[in-house]
Amino acid sequence: MFITSLLHISNNDHNVSEYSPSNVRDRPKMASWSEKMMQLLRRMNNFHLPGSSLESCLRFEVAGEQVGWIPPKIASVLGRFPTVFRPYGSAITLCSRLDTFESRSVAVDDVLQELRREATFTCLIGWRNEQYAVMPRYCDPPFMYMERAATSLFGVKRYGVHINGYTRDSSGNLNMWLARRSLTKPTYPGRLDNMAAGGLAAGCSVRHTMVKECEEEACIPPGLAEQARPVGTVSYTYEDDEGVFPECQFVFDLELPLNFQPHIGDGEVQAFYYYPIEKVKDLLVSEEFKPNCAMVVLDFLIRHAIIEPDSEPYYHEFVAGLHRSL
Amino acid sequence: MFITSLLHISNNDHNVSEYSPSNVRDRPKMASWSEKMMQLLRRMNNFHLPGSSLESCLRFEVAGEQVGWIPPKIASVLGRFPTVFRPYGSAITLCSRLDTFESRSVAVDDVLQELRREATFTCLIGWRNEQYAVMPRYCDPPFMYMERAATSLFGVKRYGVHINGYTRDSSGNLNMWLARRSLTKPTYPGRLDNMAAGGLAAGCSVRHTMVKECEEEACIPPGLAEQARPVGTVSYTYEDDEGVFPECQFVFDLELPLNFQPHIGDGEVQAFYYYPIEKVKDLLVSEEFKPNCAMVVLDFLIRHAIIEPDSEPYYHEFVAGLHRSL
Repeated sequence: MFITSLLHISNNDHNVSEYSPSNVRDRPKMASWSEKMMQLLRRMNNFHLPGSSLESCLRFEVAGEQVGWIPPKIASVLGRFPTVFRPYGSAITLCSRLDTFESRSVAVDDVLQELRREATFTCLIGWRNEQYAVMPRYCDPPFMYMERAATSLFGVKRYGVHINGYTRDSSGNLNMWLARRSLTKPTYPGRLDNMAAGGLAAGCSVRHTMVKECEEEACIPPGLAEQARPVGTVSYTYEDDEGVFPECQFVFDLELPLNFQPHIGDGEVQAFYYYPIEKVKDLLVSEEFKPNCAMVVLDFLIRHAIIEPDSEPYYHEFVAGLHRSL
Repeated sequence: MFITSLLHISNNDHNVSEYSPSNVRDRPKMASWSEKMMQLLRRMNNFHLPGSSLESCLRFEVAGEQVGWIPPKIASVLGRFPTVFRPYGSAITLCSRLDTFESRSVAVDDVLQELRREATFTCLIGWRNEQYAVMPRYCDPPFMYMERAATSLFGVKRYGVHINGYTRDSSGNLNMWLARRSLTKPTYPGRLDNMAAGGLAAGCSVRHTMVKECEEEACIPPGLAEQARPVGTVSYTYEDDEGVFPECQFVFDLELPLNFQPHIGDGEVQAFYYYPIEKVKDLLVSEEFKPNCAMVVLDFLIRHAIIEPDSEPYYHEFVAGLHRSL
């Protein structure tokens, strides 16, 4: 399984397309690994780019504080529900009677359920039944819950946990475990992912979520997962037809025994691969990788000195692009 | 020496002032460690804050590309030298005859020498005779050189190298080496600093600068310094009366043998201290630390899991605040 997959990936990878002599003349100059990585970072931060909808978005405010950004076309749909949402200068806020955690969560959920039935927004087709907390900063008490699939409509920040599973042999060589996402996942089916990852549901701690995802997705015993070390965050904001996605991933490194092997757990993963770190680096810029997972690995490559400032022209731009926040 | 200094620092530290019962009533509520750290990050990124001069600054352009930001009051002084600087829309650029690396460097240096003699700008009193490269991004070929002390007048980005020197005992406990800056340093005399650090002069590689600073400032043999690992960058932009300071520090971690001891080298350091990492954490928010060195240590604390997301409320804000870029 591992070897087959390795070959399969190599054959679809840039190694082949870049050096195939037959069509060099007809094609634009291929971007280098570094340039492709920069393109990925720009795409994942496109809300910050000139020409994004950042200027035209309305602030989403709850209890007088901004908790998101609503694109104008979404705001106009919300205008149909004046008993829940109301304009407030260049912001949209909740009606003043919605002044408790419970009443806000229920009223907004009612609107979202109606929009889901109408199939107004494609993102609501992927309804998750996962409640995300809505608050200005991660450390603030949440103002309300919101269905995970709806957060992009309001540009509400989402938090998640990603775990780099890796090994180091006696010579210091690193290998990394990657997961291939199940074909039934609503987002990025079949793409490469970190060994384990998951969204941070309301009320769950970061460490609890890390241990849970390791166990559910990769059958890693909690005692082993507990050895994972938090090493920072990766954050970015992109926008697409489904809204605005400000995201922050809490990143853990889990050094695994050389003889350890993750196993498929809850069916979110179809296969695990074990690759030398240089092979993982090559894969990052292929279309195989889920983009935010590629960012988490890029951060790993930098922290573990696989990428060095004197040989990587965009070293500083990589680090800055991995840690943007609105 | 070590013990004396340790006591000295403790007595001036927030441990005392925070818990002294005599004056609790008269004083405003003390900020927590986390809040003090956030204040430091905000101060070091004040060019990004609402109300900064960012909006009123003129772009500094060379060869059609932006390489800095010039505050209006500095721009008006440069207007006295129309054979070198000329306005160009909302930018200031060099006169078109200055179209080579050499001619730009010489012409700007002539202006700076005149301003230095006139004592127009305080920052030029600290003239360093260190040439910094001026370019849009680190990976770009430099357009010209500029005296280090003048870069803030033009908001030209400065690059440096900082080295975290630390040890790990058999139980995994971390200790860190800190330097106290010499009283004769032109900036932040007497403050705490990373074990070694220095600006990146034009034409020098990051790794070469790292090894050189380790040897010159802390007498670390090159063979040992070479084991340091690049682990990312810390970047920020602040402004003060002397102009705009966009800075990027390349960060290295150097794990040292438990019995190793740095020694004072070129006189930029007056003493080295060896502290448990929790003590270093406490010191970060004291007025003892040079602020950008405190940022480098904060980044170390996060990467080494001394600070964890479930117990540090501003965990994500810390990571984002350590990696801002214009």
